[in-house]
Amino acid sequence: MSVAAGTVAEAKGGTTRREHILDAAEACFVRSGFHRATMQDIAREAAMSPANIYRYFASKEDVVLGLAERERERGAALVAEMERAGDRRGALMGIIERYFAQVTRGTAVLRLDIWSEATRNPGIAAMVDRSEEEARGWFVQTLARLATAPDCDPAALYAAINPLMKGIMVNRALLPDYDPAPAVAQLRAQLEAGLAGRLPALSRDEPAEAAISHPAMGGAR
Amino acid sequence: MSVAAGTVAEAKGGTTRREHILDAAEACFVRSGFHRATMQDIAREAAMSPANIYRYFASKEDVVLGLAERERERGAALVAEMERAGDRRGALMGIIERYFAQVTRGTAVLRLDIWSEATRNPGIAAMVDRSEEEARGWFVQTLARLATAPDCDPAALYAAINPLMKGIMVNRALLPDYDPAPAVAQLRAQLEAGLAGRLPALSRDEPAEAAISHPAMGGAR
Repeated sequence: MSVAAGTVAEAKGGTTRREHILDAAEACFVRSGFHRATMQDIAREAAMSPANIYRYFASKEDVVLGLAERERERGAALVAEMERAGDRRGALMGIIERYFAQVTRGTAVLRLDIWSEATRNPGIAAMVDRSEEEARGWFVQTLARLATAPDCDPAALYAAINPLMKGIMVNRALLPDYDPAPAVAQLRAQLEAGLAGRLPALSRDEPAEAAISHPAMGGAR
Repeated sequence: MSVAAGTVAEAKGGTTRREHILDAAEACFVRSGFHRATMQDIAREAAMSPANIYRYFASKEDVVLGLAERERERGAALVAEMERAGDRRGALMGIIERYFAQVTRGTAVLRLDIWSEATRNPGIAAMVDRSEEEARGWFVQTLARLATAPDCDPAALYAAINPLMKGIMVNRALLPDYDPAPAVAQLRAQLEAGLAGRLPALSRDEPAEAAISHPAMGGAR
């Protein structure tokens, strides 16, 4: 994700200096985690003085928030780029390819940390909520336009693929040699089935568990 | 999960004292995270002196490891209990009910933290690997025995449901009012379809993306 790190480092403007600090912070956080990495570490990684870092970010939390916000903006930019480059279906499949099939371990580790941090930090939680809402809005709108069957429910389809997307990130972060290809194939197949109105588990009126012999759980402990 | 906290607190044996400290640590970690919570906090929560805590755990990392190990043991105990209580299908559906449909936010937050920690801490990573391997072993064996179609591939079926399981945990931790029911229904439907040999995305020879118009990603950036 830190594609432009080299050029950014050479730039002098405030925005690019900010970007440079975020790149350095990202490297530190992926290596050591939010909590172990210090502003000192980030300054060292950025080859700047700590005092200079504090001109751009008031605290480490501010840096974390800046990174989460940048992740969100990059997602939005990627969507815009994909939509310019091709049709809606191409944009959808392109997003899945870039976000999941090609996700680097560093990006996945950072995402896992941001989620973990969001469970306790209201600022990060608000940012994550905003990202989630934006993603949901875009997906539901895109799925609605791509649906090929009248009984495709775009909101339910997104709700169905969303945990799978998150799980791919977790596995990518957790397992150094994880190959996301099978899970991404599954994601595409679910999208395909959902768009064609063939996703049985999506019907909320008639939940899938009805079809299964359900054990009586009542008495146990 | 801390069902026996009250009785454990009253007990005097080393094992139960250890359990009591782990219960206190779990409460602290869920509230503040591994990194913010101190041994002092854990001691306060356990109503013990810090020196006494250190008789049972050499360091905070040791406590984290103890918690991860306890999570693993509880999973194994739950499986054993389910297998005693009913047939294999009942055990499978019971595990899914308890682990996913009924998961508390605290348990999910702790799981997310353990995963996040595993990306950097080799001790925690080894424990997570062991849990993952045990879960995989049990599921693959159970799915193999429950398969109703010759072309059900238990290992591929487990690989397919595994990221969905992880994503349910993430959403449960991340979204305070998350209802796992639809995702759990989907999990059951996938299991059902997979056991009956009807899960298109599971065929690795003929990946699902072949069915989809795939955008050319090559040139971009």
